[in-house]
Amino acid sequence: MEKLDVLTGKYGEEGDRLIFKILNSGNYLDDAQRKQFDFGQPQAAQRLLPMVSEKALRYDLTVPFARYVVMNHHLLAFPFKRYQIQPVWRADRPQAGRYREFYQCDVDVVGSDSLLNEFDLVQIAEAGFSGLGIHGVTLRINNRKLLQGIANWFGAGDRFVEFITILDKLDKIGEEGVFKEWAEKEFTVDPGKYERFKRLNGKSALEKVDYLRALLNSDGGNHDAEAGLNELGFLFSLMNNLDFTSVTPELDVFLARGLSYYTGCIFEAGVEDFGGSILGGGRYDNLTGVFGQPGLSGVGISFGADRIYDILQKRGLARQAAASELKIMLLNFGGVGQDTALRVLLGLRKAGFSAEIYPDGHVKPGKQFQYAEKVGFTHAVVIGDLEVAEQACNVKDLAERRETRIPIAGVIQHFSEIRNRA
Amino acid sequence: MEKLDVLTGKYGEEGDRLIFKILNSGNYLDDAQRKQFDFGQPQAAQRLLPMVSEKALRYDLTVPFARYVVMNHHLLAFPFKRYQIQPVWRADRPQAGRYREFYQCDVDVVGSDSLLNEFDLVQIAEAGFSGLGIHGVTLRINNRKLLQGIANWFGAGDRFVEFITILDKLDKIGEEGVFKEWAEKEFTVDPGKYERFKRLNGKSALEKVDYLRALLNSDGGNHDAEAGLNELGFLFSLMNNLDFTSVTPELDVFLARGLSYYTGCIFEAGVEDFGGSILGGGRYDNLTGVFGQPGLSGVGISFGADRIYDILQKRGLARQAAASELKIMLLNFGGVGQDTALRVLLGLRKAGFSAEIYPDGHVKPGKQFQYAEKVGFTHAVVIGDLEVAEQACNVKDLAERRETRIPIAGVIQHFSEIRNRA
Repeated sequence: MEKLDVLTGKYGEEGDRLIFKILNSGNYLDDAQRKQFDFGQPQAAQRLLPMVSEKALRYDLTVPFARYVVMNHHLLAFPFKRYQIQPVWRADRPQAGRYREFYQCDVDVVGSDSLLNEFDLVQIAEAGFSGLGIHGVTLRINNRKLLQGIANWFGAGDRFVEFITILDKLDKIGEEGVFKEWAEKEFTVDPGKYERFKRLNGKSALEKVDYLRALLNSDGGNHDAEAGLNELGFLFSLMNNLDFTSVTPELDVFLARGLSYYTGCIFEAGVEDFGGSILGGGRYDNLTGVFGQPGLSGVGISFGADRIYDILQKRGLARQAAASELKIMLLNFGGVGQDTALRVLLGLRKAGFSAEIYPDGHVKPGKQFQYAEKVGFTHAVVIGDLEVAEQACNVKDLAERRETRIPIAGVIQHFSEIRNRA
Repeated sequence: MEKLDVLTGKYGEEGDRLIFKILNSGNYLDDAQRKQFDFGQPQAAQRLLPMVSEKALRYDLTVPFARYVVMNHHLLAFPFKRYQIQPVWRADRPQAGRYREFYQCDVDVVGSDSLLNEFDLVQIAEAGFSGLGIHGVTLRINNRKLLQGIANWFGAGDRFVEFITILDKLDKIGEEGVFKEWAEKEFTVDPGKYERFKRLNGKSALEKVDYLRALLNSDGGNHDAEAGLNELGFLFSLMNNLDFTSVTPELDVFLARGLSYYTGCIFEAGVEDFGGSILGGGRYDNLTGVFGQPGLSGVGISFGADRIYDILQKRGLARQAAASELKIMLLNFGGVGQDTALRVLLGLRKAGFSAEIYPDGHVKPGKQFQYAEKVGFTHAVVIGDLEVAEQACNVKDLAERRETRIPIAGVIQHFSEIRNRA
């Protein structure tokens, strides 16, 4: 929850609309009634808003983070690094991969403009995805300065956001569409230049940097392009030192997300079998300026936890992660057996095993076994009055449906051996 | 976020007031304007509410959990066990230990009325607090049936909630106050009976159970008392098998929290040096009835994460938990040294160390050291151009302010030895 005025105006007009507002508590109409608010006037809802709502739900984690940094500036050591995993809310129409309430996992460094921070964030992306077993992630990287430099070269530097936004649609509307939209917005683009520009397709990141360095300076010095290419060249050279197992970094000169606020590197990651980005981020040179603290540069990435979870589910990785552990259920038949089973349970837990006893002794064994399988226990231990009399019990491997008879006193030892073998 | 009508009416009148309501998106006055709502009428805010708000913020985790269980009843295996750590919101006046937005950590079992579930929850409380290093936690346990039985014995069984609520104030208003309030509410309490009742003070839990079993049945059979004492006797006997290091369970026959919904055992935990409860819970025989699914018994506890964090802070335990780890910072002087430092950094990370490089090579060494200390790094490694030339570097233990000169190729080995010694 944030004060509404902390969020308003930070995400554009569309964003303002999508912020969930919280109704003031108590008699929330008090203020409006005292001011004799006229509910019949045009745009009444919009004008009434500041009188009935002062708080709102986080729209992302970046703006609240900037607010936090400014409020606690005197307490923090810069460069300040933090991660934050929390829900955010958007009053959007829900659809596949787009939720009204979802979790973002943000990692940011603020107060340092070194590109080593960008390098760290790439490592965190790789560590995050490989840790979850998600392979085949394409991490597209670009730089706003390069985009400006490209627009400069095409003679569109003064309206570069508009120009690039159209270029960014290449995938969706094709070359013809891009040229049509450029023409509609009165951009005159030399087709020959465009052809030469296109020749960077298929090159590696460092080849692209070299090719663009020559190309974009061909009409004279292009300071923006040079700055962007220097940053990208340095970052991609560093990345040659890393072993990527999950992430493949790519220089995508068309990537233009968040042009309204990013000032340097831009990141976006996705996988082929799932639409929509699963990570986004970039550098913003003046993160905290809007809250009265200029001069602090920040760079960050945000993992989309819900979409990542969707991928885990879709690929069957969520189950796999849990399946490697032993999960032991003791059956329960009440009576003396229950006392013994409880003693074994406590012993197993003390030895670090995940173990539970079926709570209700009156339920039939068949139903207890069914429960164990449905919940995903790996083993069931059967201790009833008879087993206590014989001081021996059956341990059932639920995956392999194999039963072993062992002394009750040896149950912990038995599972320790299984654990050690794994 | 929940639908407002899921939450309304579940927490009493006070609760309804304290629920944060979310304003509908778009033109939220549309509906009211169409219905020509009269904003001047009495209680306009209350009547307008259903037209401008359909969603609300979670007030606790229990009601949303009950809603979830009913919606997913066909998919779940019962007894269904879940934990849930999420923020909840209350439109209360903020004060020490009382927040508007705070995290609850709930553990519940639904679909089993076995007391082994209560026993499991006690173990979870102990594991949770001892895991955090919080000792001296008193876990007060009572049973609603016993409270009913006590009220029966005092001849107040028909208005037992009122009767017990006054008895529960004993700590605050003393015996005289309790008798005065009882008289005001027209409860006639035999002072002799009260004296006999009081004699359970100072007894152990199982002694209390025995004493009360004799006392409360002294005027004839007291079914409620018997049922409550059986449950408490069984639970406290089981707990004798546990080694408690953080939690001390106590039978507190005055504990009456949540009388309006708990039907069996009641739990509440606190520590002496911090006001307010840090865990609460109990059994509710009909958790899901209000959502149309009767007959499912539930029992659960809820840890108050923010208050527990406050205790960690107050007792200096938050720092302690983090201090045992190695945290290595490499200083950065740009140039050739930076390339070597980066190689060492990647090696350290690969070997599982928490290691960072100071990102900005132009910052003076003194400031970099200051930063390392302020952030809580345990060691600093100095690799500049000179060190690269000599292939040796200084490692500084920041706590003991001791420097060691080692070969650059031996840095990882050096920290591995420190880690193995710890």
